[in-house]
Amino acid sequence: MSLPLLLAEIDATREWVRGRQRAGETVGLIPTMGALHEGHLSLAKAARRDCDAVIASVFVNPTQFAPSEDFNRYPRDLNQDAQRLAAVGVDAVFAPAVETMYPPGAATSIDVGPVARLFEGASRPTHFAGVATVVAKLFTIAPADRAYFGQKDYQQTVVVRRMVADLNLPVEVVIGPTVREPDGLAMSSRNAYLSPDERQRAVALSRGLQAAQRLHAAGERRASTLRECVKNVVEAASGVELQYVAVLRDGTMDEPEVIEGPAVIAVAAKVGATRLIDNVRVES
Amino acid sequence: MSLPLLLAEIDATREWVRGRQRAGETVGLIPTMGALHEGHLSLAKAARRDCDAVIASVFVNPTQFAPSEDFNRYPRDLNQDAQRLAAVGVDAVFAPAVETMYPPGAATSIDVGPVARLFEGASRPTHFAGVATVVAKLFTIAPADRAYFGQKDYQQTVVVRRMVADLNLPVEVVIGPTVREPDGLAMSSRNAYLSPDERQRAVALSRGLQAAQRLHAAGERRASTLRECVKNVVEAASGVELQYVAVLRDGTMDEPEVIEGPAVIAVAAKVGATRLIDNVRVES
Repeated sequence: MSLPLLLAEIDATREWVRGRQRAGETVGLIPTMGALHEGHLSLAKAARRDCDAVIASVFVNPTQFAPSEDFNRYPRDLNQDAQRLAAVGVDAVFAPAVETMYPPGAATSIDVGPVARLFEGASRPTHFAGVATVVAKLFTIAPADRAYFGQKDYQQTVVVRRMVADLNLPVEVVIGPTVREPDGLAMSSRNAYLSPDERQRAVALSRGLQAAQRLHAAGERRASTLRECVKNVVEAASGVELQYVAVLRDGTMDEPEVIEGPAVIAVAAKVGATRLIDNVRVES
Repeated sequence: MSLPLLLAEIDATREWVRGRQRAGETVGLIPTMGALHEGHLSLAKAARRDCDAVIASVFVNPTQFAPSEDFNRYPRDLNQDAQRLAAVGVDAVFAPAVETMYPPGAATSIDVGPVARLFEGASRPTHFAGVATVVAKLFTIAPADRAYFGQKDYQQTVVVRRMVADLNLPVEVVIGPTVREPDGLAMSSRNAYLSPDERQRAVALSRGLQAAQRLHAAGERRASTLRECVKNVVEAASGVELQYVAVLRDGTMDEPEVIEGPAVIAVAAKVGATRLIDNVRVES
């Protein structure tokens, strides 16, 4: 198993993607911050199935962290990430230095408007501008045909789709399903922060969402009742601090009072010092 | 003389540009708001010289006008514009409807940071976000190899270059010199708003800049003295209301106290109800 081609420079990365496209191949991109888990790898496998060539980016993007957040201690292990990507057949990895992405004088920021304001955007006011900006840059540096994002970061998928539509970016955004631990906890690089005790408690998020999902399957369509259901389960867990529960029209950040059609039930909570998010999709 | 190919749709426009590039040709783009004058046409001629295929866009972009500004009365004559572009050998014109560029729900905006804040940005706080956003869209809709902008809108050139660098857009930005009327007035689509009397008075802007240029040629390097020189000439003209004079390090919006190297002397003034801008470049 050979490691993927490691690319650190912008021009070489663009040239690699364009070279494959000139050869008539389709290219899939998986943007990541590294610390790769089965969630990321499931996106890479989907890209491997759909596309002729696959590139992942590994870049812990400083502009999507607030000064108080975990940018410095965010887990980094490029060597291990490259091996995991090799194992699922990824061809190339773009892993730039911070100064390559943000040289002195860089000042441009992309605001996608209302979908970035609430929920994660309310807790993390500069987060989605950082996400949108770095994703736009990745799309111009590695101008892939398809780009893969995980459903776990639901609001991020809405933000990225908004930006892609509004800036007419010629890329197809593909959303892959959340991958879960056997007990239901959504895979997240930040799960590594949890103590063994916190790790046990963290299952409250997915349990709450599953309870709401069952309620929905039984016919409940009132958003307030579904929210209350999640809240009750999460708040019953000690050491878990609920931040929000939202019931959203699928693909949007709109909160209907009564669900019609597919919806997403999303939750954020702090488990000890670690902030976790999760969501489930319910069909109509 | 055949008219350029008229394109109103995004996909067809991208396909036209890419088709030329697939055939091994370079493509030049001239983004305009129509109401074309010799300034625009000089950019089109430069593109015609430099590139194998040339496309202009004609789009009066609502997001770069404030509600109080002249969006509704901005001159529009696509037929005449197409004829003028044909005369200088432009191959295609992208002239979309407002709803094509901004369908319902569009909400994304690009902020290029400090270079957009002062001078034109101070008078027109939403202007450069509108410019940056529409230019980014035009660059993804018509992914040309080179894009041409006029030196007359100097701060716009700084904003566009900042965005292109920060978003890694794969386009070469080319700046063409300001084209002037015989008496020195910089060509502008907004000159059409001037009454015959105002048209006479408007020459004060270029006269002021020329006076500062002569002072610079005689050895003056203090920005305050150069600004004062422009101010005196412009304010001596009745019915002309000076808005700002700036002496800027070339290619930036930095204001040195003493010029070293190339610089730009820029002025804005209202002539009657019409706001005009102009600038000159001075070498070291």
